[in-house]
Amino acid sequence: MDSVFVNILDNLGTFAFAMSGTLTALHRRFDYFGALVIAFVTATGGGTLRDLLTDAGPVFWTEATHYFYYIFAGYLIAVLFQSSLHRLSNTMFLFDTIGISIFTIIGMEKTLNLGFSPLIALNMGVMSAVVGGVIRDVLTHVPPLIFRREIYAIPCYIGGMVYWMMGWTSIPLELNILVTIILIILIRLIAIKRHWSISPHKDLDDDAV
Amino acid sequence: MDSVFVNILDNLGTFAFAMSGTLTALHRRFDYFGALVIAFVTATGGGTLRDLLTDAGPVFWTEATHYFYYIFAGYLIAVLFQSSLHRLSNTMFLFDTIGISIFTIIGMEKTLNLGFSPLIALNMGVMSAVVGGVIRDVLTHVPPLIFRREIYAIPCYIGGMVYWMMGWTSIPLELNILVTIILIILIRLIAIKRHWSISPHKDLDDDAV
Amino acid sequence: MDSVFVNILDNLGTFAFAMSGTLTALHRRFDYFGALVIAFVTATGGGTLRDLLTDAGPVFWTEATHYFYYIFAGYLIAVLFQSSLHRLSNTMFLFDTIGISIFTIIGMEKTLNLGFSPLIALNMGVMSAVVGGVIRDVLTHVPPLIFRREIYAIPCYIGGMVYWMMGWTSIPLELNILVTIILIILIRLIAIKRHWSISPHKDLDDDAV
Repeated sequence: MDSVFVNILDNLGTFAFAMSGTLTALHRRFDYFGALVIAFVTATGGGTLRDLLTDAGPVFWTEATHYFYYIFAGYLIAVLFQSSLHRLSNTMFLFDTIGISIFTIIGMEKTLNLGFSPLIALNMGVMSAVVGGVIRDVLTHVPPLIFRREIYAIPCYIGGMVYWMMGWTSIPLELNILVTIILIILIRLIAIKRHWSISPHKDLDDDAV
Repeated sequence: MDSVFVNILDNLGTFAFAMSGTLTALHRRFDYFGALVIAFVTATGGGTLRDLLTDAGPVFWTEATHYFYYIFAGYLIAVLFQSSLHRLSNTMFLFDTIGISIFTIIGMEKTLNLGFSPLIALNMGVMSAVVGGVIRDVLTHVPPLIFRREIYAIPCYIGGMVYWMMGWTSIPLELNILVTIILIILIRLIAIKRHWSISPHKDLDDDAV
Repeated sequence: MDSVFVNILDNLGTFAFAMSGTLTALHRRFDYFGALVIAFVTATGGGTLRDLLTDAGPVFWTEATHYFYYIFAGYLIAVLFQSSLHRLSNTMFLFDTIGISIFTIIGMEKTLNLGFSPLIALNMGVMSAVVGGVIRDVLTHVPPLIFRREIYAIPCYIGGMVYWMMGWTSIPLELNILVTIILIILIRLIAIKRHWSISPHKDLDDDAV
């Protein structure tokens, strides 16, 4: 997983998560320092929990400080262009979905490399993708919304399974990743357009992501 | 602690915690996927924290996938029989108390086996028993109720101390466990019946468990 | 970092955090047991997270039970003198600031000793100082206030940087620590007096610490 392609997507995902964390925090009336903290935990929270649960040693960002730069860049751009970014919600959605896709894949690979079973790897992958957002919601005192709409984690599970099965074939890694990301984006998009939901509560607000 | 008896109770506790997590989540308007996540963290959260704090290696459920099946069973039964289960609140109470009893004992044994002192082992045992419920409450955006009523964790402390002292005698393990569980159930029952409380706030609602 | 001076300050900080946790919990209508739990997580939460993230082995308090005594002392005094302590808010503020100062320094030293970079050590130091309060706020169901007012963590960052740079000189350790603590206290005091804020939201309440 040391390919340039994976690294670019990983950085893009980190950047996107930092932006989303910053925007949420400022919207919830955090100050600029608090928003930076939320940017950090949104971007790193999932991978941190994965590293703790799998006993992978010191968590990944303690030995790879480039994450700090991408988080700070995402934070800075979110602070400077707050109002414009609200109009770019489609771009933000795309970035965020690329983020959860690539985090799912990287999380799966890291967990498989440590010798865990594919079932654990799949769960760790999805966890790395979505837990940052859950911590963001708990710290900003919002009921974690992902649990109320299936369209966030389920595409990651489907994508992760497809990625894992395609890994058995001779498809090149980059193509496999690309197909997985496009698949996850498509499922999320269709689910939103068609108002797919597995909630028994039909009268929930539909405006939050 | 590899006895069949302990394993059966461990599985029963996991099953009961998964049911309670699912019911709470659905009641708090989570969707079916969110409820499954809450079932999982309710059942495994305490033991996971214990494994992290004691540096026990990868957390227990990453290498024992049978927990997934018991959690899924508890989840499924809670989803299918939601309304009936509310009428079975005595049974649910019994299952839940067996759960915290056995989790206290297993948590103590695991911690003692790693070489920690009995004081640490007792705290880790009670923590394994009650922290799943705390995480459930934080994620479902409920003020963690266990901190407002002593009758949840204190019976575990008493039971844990009695279990530890009986371990010095020649009482067989199974009997020791059985006595501890019955003791914890009795203390909880009596505390509820008599409205025992160590809260300085006398006007709290009394209807939540 | 085994000097008597550091140990005294460490214990004083632990004691002060346990008091603040207890007072917050009782104010939020927790019972006496719940307040003891909050005292414990407020005093140990930051260092616990640091030990987990840096993979430092079993967390510090599992092998140093004297922390339990200082926490219990702080808890007891807070329970007994609740009403008087509200009048001693200046003393409480001083204790709390000594607490975050010394926890920042100890956290930095522990992290540097494990071989991490100064950037990581600084962040781990500040994290050890402030995360206990964040967990306290999440568990007592208060929006974590530190994120809305910069005057809590930023003095720790400045103090930590000054401490680190003075470590290169021939200044004795005790003097370095004393200067750092006084610096952090002064920055906090001046920031409060002058209503320094980096929040974009100017109408926030100003009465919470």
